[in-house]
Amino acid sequence: MSSPLETLWEEVRELTFGTTPQIDRLHTPPTPLHFLRHYLSQNKPFILSASAATTLRWPATALWSSTSYLRQTLSNSTVSLHLTPTGHADSIATHPTSPNSLCFASAHVQQTPFSAAIDAIQSSSIDSDGGFVAYLQQQNDCFRGEYGALAGDCDSDVGWATEAIGSLPEAVNLWIGNGLSETSFHKDHYENLYAVVTGEKHFVLLPPTDVHRMYIRGYPAATYTYSQETGEFKLELENPVRHVPWCSVNPYPSPENKEKEMSEFPLYHNGPKPFEVTVKAGEILYLPSMWFHHVRQTPDPRGLTIAVNYWYDMQFDIKYAYFNFLQSLPPPPKPTSCKSRSLDDSLLNENESDCDEKCREE
Amino acid sequence: MSSPLETLWEEVRELTFGTTPQIDRLHTPPTPLHFLRHYLSQNKPFILSASAATTLRWPATALWSSTSYLRQTLSNSTVSLHLTPTGHADSIATHPTSPNSLCFASAHVQQTPFSAAIDAIQSSSIDSDGGFVAYLQQQNDCFRGEYGALAGDCDSDVGWATEAIGSLPEAVNLWIGNGLSETSFHKDHYENLYAVVTGEKHFVLLPPTDVHRMYIRGYPAATYTYSQETGEFKLELENPVRHVPWCSVNPYPSPENKEKEMSEFPLYHNGPKPFEVTVKAGEILYLPSMWFHHVRQTPDPRGLTIAVNYWYDMQFDIKYAYFNFLQSLPPPPKPTSCKSRSLDDSLLNENESDCDEKCREE
Repeated sequence: MSSPLETLWEEVRELTFGTTPQIDRLHTPPTPLHFLRHYLSQNKPFILSASAATTLRWPATALWSSTSYLRQTLSNSTVSLHLTPTGHADSIATHPTSPNSLCFASAHVQQTPFSAAIDAIQSSSIDSDGGFVAYLQQQNDCFRGEYGALAGDCDSDVGWATEAIGSLPEAVNLWIGNGLSETSFHKDHYENLYAVVTGEKHFVLLPPTDVHRMYIRGYPAATYTYSQETGEFKLELENPVRHVPWCSVNPYPSPENKEKEMSEFPLYHNGPKPFEVTVKAGEILYLPSMWFHHVRQTPDPRGLTIAVNYWYDMQFDIKYAYFNFLQSLPPPPKPTSCKSRSLDDSLLNENESDCDEKCREE
Repeated sequence: MSSPLETLWEEVRELTFGTTPQIDRLHTPPTPLHFLRHYLSQNKPFILSASAATTLRWPATALWSSTSYLRQTLSNSTVSLHLTPTGHADSIATHPTSPNSLCFASAHVQQTPFSAAIDAIQSSSIDSDGGFVAYLQQQNDCFRGEYGALAGDCDSDVGWATEAIGSLPEAVNLWIGNGLSETSFHKDHYENLYAVVTGEKHFVLLPPTDVHRMYIRGYPAATYTYSQETGEFKLELENPVRHVPWCSVNPYPSPENKEKEMSEFPLYHNGPKPFEVTVKAGEILYLPSMWFHHVRQTPDPRGLTIAVNYWYDMQFDIKYAYFNFLQSLPPPPKPTSCKSRSLDDSLLNENESDCDEKCREE
């Protein structure tokens, strides 16, 4: 017999997706009413295919495949470049002073002329002795700030979403990375319209009702500092200590960690299969507020993945109250069913907490 | 400290209504987008004032205040008249054979020429030796069936709701009653637009998250039969026994029952105050799907309350899954806080169960 939580996980999938759980792919843009009625109000994701998405008709689609266009247009711009040794920023890492425990590691952020930032992204490499991964992923409305010179290349908002939601995006962010960068599981308190311009983004998605499967725990905050002289990273804890609630699960553990992670995070690994979707150049993903998501990317031929995402304010309504209630309940002791799953099985750690407004990304 | 359930009850109120919990009163009809965005998607009720509601411009507003118009228009119609000894149909009543327990009592339903039905409503009285309360409250799309001759007097749907929801009403019902009829607490799996034509309806409303406060229990189904010869009612159990899940709480208990009910249903009586709203002639209430509601009425000068309600299909989405999960949890052992409440304090009984699709009314 299933526990109430397991029943909830299954029922949300059945109600939202029917008997063959997969993300809708729309071939014409939704009307504002259709978007509100069938997706936003139901907290249900979809992909707008390239033929239907306005991104295909953005100047960006043609212009941004030229790196020299980008370098030239942003030649006077200084941007926030995020550097990590592993490609994992805002992610769980080994604690700097106690190797048997974990911390929440943020990237070294360095104000860099745009052209040098692109060089860094293209020359990123992970190396046991040195190396770095560079990612332009500042999430402070950067597209309208640091990258203002590119503003004319994309729509300033997603028309049907703006009309449905009744307000302009709260933030628009630009993301330029490569195949080494990965964003760990988290959720955002925004309705997210995520447009890929070049390359591909690979999302793993779980509905908010799966919160116990993410093993959200409080990790001490730490930040990388990178020395250009030595080419070395140092990870330092914040002082005073601040705990960041973050998802513990990694959907793609290394083969040597897989067994350990499956036994540490059984609700994730034995529960219903997460949704995996690839968003290609020209496509737009509607990623509903509060959905957990993990993101990897495949670069275009020159080694870049470029995306623009629009964050619209979410409604803090009865769904949000239900989520908070759910999250306040203890997790089930252990899974009652053990459906085996194919590839993507993984993960790590111990103590419940809340993922607050600060936990925002992609 | 509040329990998670108590926190949920309060948070839904704060998120939905802000710091001064009261039902919005709109003075212009919402656009379909506005209705979807601010009300339907948020599961939030409102009242459309008479000046804004189309009901004021319905022929029904003028025509139905003439009883002779109604008698004449429906002179060939036979209608389903509901008779009870107390004015409480589809309600908890004393068990016919074991006086210390309770049952779920449905009305005696009698096919009656419309004119005789009106006579019965106007001559209803509750009497210790005899008497009856008559109510036209058939909920099977009766306005488009039994009362088809009146169809031209009202809109066949609520335009902005139809456009928002994307389909016509699943059912339209006519209600003709008097001040003695009362509808007990229940919820419907419909989005409900409730238009009062003459008289007033008094609603007590609680959000779906308050489900544990309703003490939904399984009661054996019973039906009244009324003998016109003797003027007596007999309440008979269904055979084989069928249990109907129903709310146990009465918001307006008699003074002699008040203390007993307060101690039997402490979560209702000590929890957050229910919403009380009066819907007047010409006004429309949007009663969101899954909200618990109790209804009383004040008649117009000739002793009638007339209303038309439109039931639109609800979306069975993540909110519905959250509700089912919530309902599957055991209630808290007893309230941790005991806020005293003013007037409307009440209630009765013991064993959890589900309020299924059958539990629909007003």
